[in-house]
Amino acid sequence: MTSKMSPPQFVMLVFLFLILIGTCILALPISSASGLSIGLLDALFTATSAVCVNGLVVVDTGSVFSTFGQVVIMILIQVGGLGFMTMGVIVAIMLGKRIGLKQRLIIQQTTQSKSSSGLVKLCLYIVFIAFAFETVAVTVLTLRWMGDMGFAEALYHAVFHSVSAFNNAGFALWSDSLSSYVNDPVVNLTIIWLFVSGGLGYIVIVELIRKRKWRSFSLHTKIVLVSSGSLLAIGFLLVFALETLNPQTFGQLSWSERIWSGFFQSATSRSAGFNTIDISNMLSASQLVLIILMFIGASSGGTGGGIKTTTFFVLILATFNTFRGGGQIHAFERKISVEIIMRALAVVISSLLCVFVVALLLTVTEGIYEEHFMEVLFEATSAFSTAGLSMGLTSELSPMGKFIVTITMFIGRLGPLTLAYALAEKKKKSKLGYPEDHVLIG
Amino acid sequence: MTSKMSPPQFVMLVFLFLILIGTCILALPISSASGLSIGLLDALFTATSAVCVNGLVVVDTGSVFSTFGQVVIMILIQVGGLGFMTMGVIVAIMLGKRIGLKQRLIIQQTTQSKSSSGLVKLCLYIVFIAFAFETVAVTVLTLRWMGDMGFAEALYHAVFHSVSAFNNAGFALWSDSLSSYVNDPVVNLTIIWLFVSGGLGYIVIVELIRKRKWRSFSLHTKIVLVSSGSLLAIGFLLVFALETLNPQTFGQLSWSERIWSGFFQSATSRSAGFNTIDISNMLSASQLVLIILMFIGASSGGTGGGIKTTTFFVLILATFNTFRGGGQIHAFERKISVEIIMRALAVVISSLLCVFVVALLLTVTEGIYEEHFMEVLFEATSAFSTAGLSMGLTSELSPMGKFIVTITMFIGRLGPLTLAYALAEKKKKSKLGYPEDHVLIG
Ligand SMILES: [K+]
Ligand SMILES: [K+]
Repeated sequence: MTSKMSPPQFVMLVFLFLILIGTCILALPISSASGLSIGLLDALFTATSAVCVNGLVVVDTGSVFSTFGQVVIMILIQVGGLGFMTMGVIVAIMLGKRIGLKQRLIIQQTTQSKSSSGLVKLCLYIVFIAFAFETVAVTVLTLRWMGDMGFAEALYHAVFHSVSAFNNAGFALWSDSLSSYVNDPVVNLTIIWLFVSGGLGYIVIVELIRKRKWRSFSLHTKIVLVSSGSLLAIGFLLVFALETLNPQTFGQLSWSERIWSGFFQSATSRSAGFNTIDISNMLSASQLVLIILMFIGASSGGTGGGIKTTTFFVLILATFNTFRGGGQIHAFERKISVEIIMRALAVVISSLLCVFVVALLLTVTEGIYEEHFMEVLFEATSAFSTAGLSMGLTSELSPMGKFIVTITMFIGRLGPLTLAYALAEKKKKSKLGYPEDHVLIG
Repeated sequence: MTSKMSPPQFVMLVFLFLILIGTCILALPISSASGLSIGLLDALFTATSAVCVNGLVVVDTGSVFSTFGQVVIMILIQVGGLGFMTMGVIVAIMLGKRIGLKQRLIIQQTTQSKSSSGLVKLCLYIVFIAFAFETVAVTVLTLRWMGDMGFAEALYHAVFHSVSAFNNAGFALWSDSLSSYVNDPVVNLTIIWLFVSGGLGYIVIVELIRKRKWRSFSLHTKIVLVSSGSLLAIGFLLVFALETLNPQTFGQLSWSERIWSGFFQSATSRSAGFNTIDISNMLSASQLVLIILMFIGASSGGTGGGIKTTTFFVLILATFNTFRGGGQIHAFERKISVEIIMRALAVVISSLLCVFVVALLLTVTEGIYEEHFMEVLFEATSAFSTAGLSMGLTSELSPMGKFIVTITMFIGRLGPLTLAYALAEKKKKSKLGYPEDHVLIG
């Protein structure tokens, strides 16, 4: 990291470099099951999807790639997911400083240090926690799958899906994702536990393990837990209630399967990207719910994407506050500064613009008529929020469409704010001293 | 207005009362061309659409209603449109005071008075301006249509469409709206001039007439003119570029017709609600552009709806400001206060939630599968933003769907913020003194 490069610029370059290497390796014949290269564009798409822990795929991971190719994808996921988790936490610290917040940063409570050795320690902590979670899951899933496919295969599948789940990547070795295990409590619980933990983020996990008591949690952790919990509950209730009317999905399932898959589908849309029922068969009302859940996504400092639960919480809070007459904005007996609300505003507006522009571009490049608009909106949101769910459009994309989705996955992973900071000029002197004037709003 | 009632509560009750009276009259057999009542639900829908200057229709205005019924609709539009324009300006003054803005209000530069006689004077000004615009348009349109249909019919059509256009109501006596005049410069220019003027709002019109010079305009007027101009230009370019590819619309038109209809369709989506080509035949990319334009809508203090151009401008400004490192937000050498940005935030978040909830409800009540999702999203946005454009779903709505759209038109017309102020308890004491804490965003 040279002194001329800002931390977000550094993150952006590291990810670009990872994607480039991944593309080159995945385009090699040795990565392909058939022994013939899958081509540069599909390799680029897959590498970007893996590094950005997105999960959208243009070729079937389980059948098109060789074991070597699959292991490369798994490594890209692990490096991308952990890299982003680590970098995300560090960048958040830097950005926090840059926008002038002077309070003690949450993360310093963990590392007890501000020096660069503190950052190394932080990275090691994060890697340790990720491996701890994945090791537990690998053990459970290997035991579960051993009977079906023998020890070696079971271990391989357990490792691949554990890495994919904790990093919210959503890559699966089965072409129908986890649909075969729609009613399997062990697989459901293990995978959900992994991606929810990864999605909560490092800070929250550490506080949950160390502090345990609600009152001692930081504001960030409280907001993450409350908003994640509410979104999980609301998502489950809506998907369950809506799909119960749908003969193409729940009509074919028992009640226990309905509860599992209602929970799984609403949880997975918040960045994980696995699915246990076919998304394209769901009602359009449920698909709209999933789009909104994907857009909100997981939590800051985690492996998931989207605008983040904290952003959503802060926006709703600010909205209610204005409705009640304004004044100081507070949650859990802590004041939330105007700077934080402005950042949330910037994130949601730029994300909405991005999703709409991508949807617009895809509508044109893919020659979409109104009948397929939902698929485009779903795809654009999924690509941007790194959710990786698809109604089926990805596999039919034109070369130009693949390229647009690739860029979208990258922008969505870095987050519009990180990207803008990375690209921005140094802060201009703010022109103080203008008189205030009134504007009519709404 | 009793002392116990807040201004927004008063506005809400007046509008409810107007809708009720309108419903009763339109349900009478005398209002119907066939001499048989159109039924209470359709009467309620039509009255709400007229009072809220929306323009969505469940029955064809020109053929189903008698001349009496059509005149009633016209009066409802005029009273609703002017009432809202007037009340909108007054409420904006009140809310401006309430949120603690102390600078001289723009409107007082016009009325030169803060007393209640000043408000009466303001209302008379607004009515005068509306009639002046409409009189000019009636004269032009009567002359244009006299040759086609004789003086009496031409005058009747000119009055009805002038009132409908200035108030951004979008009601037309032809079932295909203004499609017969797709290439007619007189009709195009007159109608566009009317609804754009009405959409700019009273304050801007007055400043344009009295001050003339850019430098002497208020911040509000500058923002309205810049954002309205940009949206018109961007909308035209996008619709024109996209539809040129479309054999179902522009493929059948000459180049001059394409330019007129490109301009008309992008302008009309910003609340007017007339159309000169069939919206359902447009490309889904263009439909998405129209959805976004409808959502943004016209300007505060005018006859149009949506979140308003000023809201959109302020949000974009705040977003860019955060990207550039934060600090004071300013436009045209004037500071924009945090309270104004918070109001813009509250308006956009609650409006987005409202449109999504309505789309979700309609998807369920109308049993919509993904093929028709675009129609639902278009309809929900159109109902909420009082745009009144339709891809055809309105005429096929179930009774429950009609009821949902009716409520949406009402909420959308009052604006989420006015409604929330009307329903809210008195301002709670803000709990000062909480310590500030950090949250990771995005
Ligand atoms: K994912
Ligand atoms: K309208």
